[in-house]
Amino acid sequence: MWERLLTDCHVATMVPQPGNPLGIIENAAIGIDDGKIVRVAKRTELAGFRAAQVTALGGAWVTPGLIDCHTHLVFGGNRSEEHAMRRAGATYEEIAEAGGGIVSSVAKTRAASEEALLASARRRLEALAKSGVTTIEVKSGYGLDVETELKMLRVAKSLDGHKGVTVVPTLLALHALPPGVDRRDYVDRVAKETIPAVARERLANSVDAYLEGIAFTRDEVEKIFTAAQAVGLPVRLHAEQLSNQQGAALAAKHKALSADHLEHLDEAGVKAMAASGTVAVLLPAAYYCLRDTTPPPVDLLRKHKVPIAVATDCNPGTSPTLSLPLVMNMGCTLFGLTPEEVVAGTTVHAARALGLAHDRGALAPGKRADLCAWNVENLAELGYWIGLPGPDRRIVAGADA
Amino acid sequence: MWERLLTDCHVATMVPQPGNPLGIIENAAIGIDDGKIVRVAKRTELAGFRAAQVTALGGAWVTPGLIDCHTHLVFGGNRSEEHAMRRAGATYEEIAEAGGGIVSSVAKTRAASEEALLASARRRLEALAKSGVTTIEVKSGYGLDVETELKMLRVAKSLDGHKGVTVVPTLLALHALPPGVDRRDYVDRVAKETIPAVARERLANSVDAYLEGIAFTRDEVEKIFTAAQAVGLPVRLHAEQLSNQQGAALAAKHKALSADHLEHLDEAGVKAMAASGTVAVLLPAAYYCLRDTTPPPVDLLRKHKVPIAVATDCNPGTSPTLSLPLVMNMGCTLFGLTPEEVVAGTTVHAARALGLAHDRGALAPGKRADLCAWNVENLAELGYWIGLPGPDRRIVAGADA
Ligand SMILES: [Zn+2]
Ligand SMILES: [Zn+2]
Repeated sequence: MWERLLTDCHVATMVPQPGNPLGIIENAAIGIDDGKIVRVAKRTELAGFRAAQVTALGGAWVTPGLIDCHTHLVFGGNRSEEHAMRRAGATYEEIAEAGGGIVSSVAKTRAASEEALLASARRRLEALAKSGVTTIEVKSGYGLDVETELKMLRVAKSLDGHKGVTVVPTLLALHALPPGVDRRDYVDRVAKETIPAVARERLANSVDAYLEGIAFTRDEVEKIFTAAQAVGLPVRLHAEQLSNQQGAALAAKHKALSADHLEHLDEAGVKAMAASGTVAVLLPAAYYCLRDTTPPPVDLLRKHKVPIAVATDCNPGTSPTLSLPLVMNMGCTLFGLTPEEVVAGTTVHAARALGLAHDRGALAPGKRADLCAWNVENLAELGYWIGLPGPDRRIVAGADA
Repeated sequence: MWERLLTDCHVATMVPQPGNPLGIIENAAIGIDDGKIVRVAKRTELAGFRAAQVTALGGAWVTPGLIDCHTHLVFGGNRSEEHAMRRAGATYEEIAEAGGGIVSSVAKTRAASEEALLASARRRLEALAKSGVTTIEVKSGYGLDVETELKMLRVAKSLDGHKGVTVVPTLLALHALPPGVDRRDYVDRVAKETIPAVARERLANSVDAYLEGIAFTRDEVEKIFTAAQAVGLPVRLHAEQLSNQQGAALAAKHKALSADHLEHLDEAGVKAMAASGTVAVLLPAAYYCLRDTTPPPVDLLRKHKVPIAVATDCNPGTSPTLSLPLVMNMGCTLFGLTPEEVVAGTTVHAARALGLAHDRGALAPGKRADLCAWNVENLAELGYWIGLPGPDRRIVAGADA
């Protein structure tokens, strides 16, 4: 007697079979016990099994619950005024130089109470949950001082479980240099104070940095990666967004979970990522928002079999994005990804980018029963519709969320 | 004693005041009686008024209910396979020549029962309603024969009122030439049979056509416009989407309610539209979906004071779009419209494009009490967020919808 049996559905298990990369089972049923998947099979094969709760899904397509593996969900205020500047033709660099950009969110985030940060982030989380998200990564990075970085991560922790969503916190250790601060002192302090404090309080699962002409150098990033690894935290990197800084190779050298953005990634970087098993996290809504014209090298990623994830990059400046299915469409429309790739990119590969592939991102025995039931005729519609409102049902650890 | 009083809100009335183009009233209240607006004013000015129902809106921003003034909501099947073709680099013209495009939707629409068409359109309408839409234009045009065009318009009529949404049906008289049919015979038949039949059964409020190299000529469109005007129906036109065919000037000559798309519009066309009072309906999601790189001449439209509307163009081929706020963001991001312009473009100007400005699109005494309450800090957020889930409350003719 299982806890729950889901029937009358087609399932993308995300466990590849020969000729069936998404492990699709049509006319399927899903057995759930103790909040975990027990069995996914043809309905007829599960005819003899009984469950305390049987739910017919009305012919829906079922995917694992969507995983948004790159967000900056917690921030003070918003930046609708820069939206106007960009429309007037200002570049991201120009906005940064004009004192706008990340630094303006820093001021508002420092000024905000934990309660205020939590309230505004909760509303964004609700929108993303409604769009199908059951697990979300949330970065710090608008504090730029020990105190505010810890405050952001505590807010992320408080968000955990809201609307059933698992929050995976990341310390974005190097995001921007605070005005009037010595570079070397700043990076030293992050390495020697912020990272150990976060590790001590177990406030983050990984450490991230931003390697770019307008942000931090390879040497600075490497110092931070070394400090993270010293306290046992894996790393990830914002890499090659605006220019090729050989960040992907640096990330790979440190066995990074992911390298993210990657518009200016070259083949050497792709090969390095393939060798280290680093996931390529593509962020098409940031590309859209910045009116970028250089897409990431999807063909090279395919050629070298680098797992591709896609994520919202939800942030106030360059991607105020509140829907993961919309980003799936942008991945198809703007980057030429296939519907299959964006489904994998928001489930199994996104789980791997978070170091959670053992537990979620696929519908297989032993995995957490997080799933979405979509009222669509075929799975490709998840990449086809622009602004699909979200799944008709979201189930988290076996229960309706 | 009014029917209803809405309090604790800020209102964009869309009735321009000096220095206040959207007619914004902060800390406002809205009096409703008999399903219509009676009064919008500062809360303090309405302190003495009472109502059967008083609803505090929690500090929300209130806009008129959104009006989506250009959709092809009713169609059989969907075209997720072409989504793949376009990603592989095929142009809209190439897809049309390969027998795909509009013609493939025609086959599925002809084959579908009225019930099936209604069921699928209803789900799309629900998504758009959730996004804030209270009035929607719905075109025929996937029938290409008298019988199926009438069937589509009957489906549109059956949709009217679902989720409180007013459906405004349009006969899209010239959309594509059915394969194997003589051009002249086809256009004659549309003029002499389809248009009079639609007028007789009162199935459409206006007549539309598609003027383009791959579609119909100026002479053919003019024949249809003349037939429409002979039965008292106003016209509108799909114009200058892929090339400049001087369609806007033709539309203006016939006092068209709107000319739509307009990527290749020139200044002569803009001036003609300004003189005739024709609304420019911009469709940024189609532009996005086709990866177009020539935006419509927004500066010229502003210079000559042509009213600008924005709409989803919801259709299975070039804009499978299910959210009007998303299209508002695309209008800002892709076409450089201001947040104020996209709010006007989905309310007061969209109403005018449908010939309904006397009745809706603004919150003023005597207008229908269709409105949306948005839980945002400032109105500009309607153009800022990418994939905003929709308003927190939608009110139609004074009642919660
Ligand atoms: Zn980021
Ligand atoms: Zn159209």
